[in-house]
Amino acid sequence: MAFTVRQKILFKHCDPAGIVFYPRYFEIMNDCTEAFFADALHWPFEELLKTAAIPTAQISAQFQAPSHHGDHLDIALGIARLGRSSVDLTFHATCGDETRFTAQSTLVHISQNGRSQSWPDALRPAFVPHIIGDQNDS
Amino acid sequence: MAFTVRQKILFKHCDPAGIVFYPRYFEIMNDCTEAFFADALHWPFEELLKTAAIPTAQISAQFQAPSHHGDHLDIALGIARLGRSSVDLTFHATCGDETRFTAQSTLVHISQNGRSQSWPDALRPAFVPHIIGDQNDS
Amino acid sequence: MAFTVRQKILFKHCDPAGIVFYPRYFEIMNDCTEAFFADALHWPFEELLKTAAIPTAQISAQFQAPSHHGDHLDIALGIARLGRSSVDLTFHATCGDETRFTAQSTLVHISQNGRSQSWPDALRPAFVPHIIGDQNDS
Amino acid sequence: MAFTVRQKILFKHCDPAGIVFYPRYFEIMNDCTEAFFADALHWPFEELLKTAAIPTAQISAQFQAPSHHGDHLDIALGIARLGRSSVDLTFHATCGDETRFTAQSTLVHISQNGRSQSWPDALRPAFVPHIIGDQNDS
Repeated sequence: MAFTVRQKILFKHCDPAGIVFYPRYFEIMNDCTEAFFADALHWPFEELLKTAAIPTAQISAQFQAPSHHGDHLDIALGIARLGRSSVDLTFHATCGDETRFTAQSTLVHISQNGRSQSWPDALRPAFVPHIIGDQNDS
Repeated sequence: MAFTVRQKILFKHCDPAGIVFYPRYFEIMNDCTEAFFADALHWPFEELLKTAAIPTAQISAQFQAPSHHGDHLDIALGIARLGRSSVDLTFHATCGDETRFTAQSTLVHISQNGRSQSWPDALRPAFVPHIIGDQNDS
Repeated sequence: MAFTVRQKILFKHCDPAGIVFYPRYFEIMNDCTEAFFADALHWPFEELLKTAAIPTAQISAQFQAPSHHGDHLDIALGIARLGRSSVDLTFHATCGDETRFTAQSTLVHISQNGRSQSWPDALRPAFVPHIIGDQNDS
Repeated sequence: MAFTVRQKILFKHCDPAGIVFYPRYFEIMNDCTEAFFADALHWPFEELLKTAAIPTAQISAQFQAPSHHGDHLDIALGIARLGRSSVDLTFHATCGDETRFTAQSTLVHISQNGRSQSWPDALRPAFVPHIIGDQNDS
């Protein structure tokens, strides 16, 4: 089951060519991830960050087609892999039938001293319905 | 030969954890690419964009270590592959001896009607000294 | 009658001090203005910009109290003055009972050649219910 | 004596109309202020923020003429008023002979518990040469 966010492409997202400036897509993806933790996992960033952090270790994106001001994007976030202390996310953004971008990221759950730490046991069941790929532990 | 830009990590780049918010790294990479076209290729974006565009088709980044406010990053940009109408760039950002991030992007040279078009012949010699990987035509 | 937008303060908005980085407030205000033109005036920016523009001629903001990650802001946009080709907007952002910021801006309606031009006659009635101050023509 | 920063208008600063998106101007002003504290006052933000903060209490800007991609702006920062624990800054941005924007801000020096506190005595002499208006204590 994918978690989906709808995002209208706003003036602030667009560059002189009239299409989304790609660093703005990463802000949009971060907003999706933040919404996923708040609405799907019920562990909002503003709570999580009091005792931990989840930095992005890597991210890749493929921009298949440009998005223009006023487009409505549906961005589906899924879990490709749930590890002991990390998670691989996938993003698939469409406008109508057209794919605009796909992306893959890895987040790591760390404590305030910067060491990776296991996801809270209470949280793992909330992740599970969103796993769309292989579930391996790492 | 790599083209290098020095960038101080400023207040605006940093998040509540006191480290660079990763979408800001993509802005920094875009600034590096813009400086490369202006200073190394002598084809600044503000000229290029009058008749063409160079959208980013894909980009991947690996964030090895966090960067903090006040750090000075040296960002080396090289060409991994020069194609007929595309170019693969690599980025290697260090602070002193420590790698902070590496990244790889593909830019495509398109005309105003959105079709890929060959790099101008006059431009190719300017690219060549910055090629650090295999040079294949595609 | 004020037009109100609710905005959660997200990770991307916040600085190393854990509060909103004030340039982000101006993005938020621009989003509000864009929502106002789309939802209240039914003249979305993506349509308007095909034949005209509405640059901001001036803006002032007073930041009364800091906003933190996770806060929900209610931002009320009203019209302080509707001119022939300009409009003065006011913003009042609250979190619960606390005012977080107030702001005032002036937008000018210009044609693609950069000259100020009257608001479309068909549009003026849509502005009227949102006028909260003096209505003078200028 | 004004403190001046030169800033090229980059692709990231510009909107679909090909001119600076005004929230980006506030980032540029914040960068100027950060450079002023580092280079003129020798009290860089990354040091200052370890024990204090200097939030912006208010800011006003007047955008006289648009700036385009590739323009080189000279931004002069001066002190209009130096208070006990606050400072009023002025910004005057020009491109060649043309004024692009002027702005005025008030910063307040606060301790980590959020209370205003006097500027360090050792710092006041560094402010003085940059005072361009009346010098009143408040």
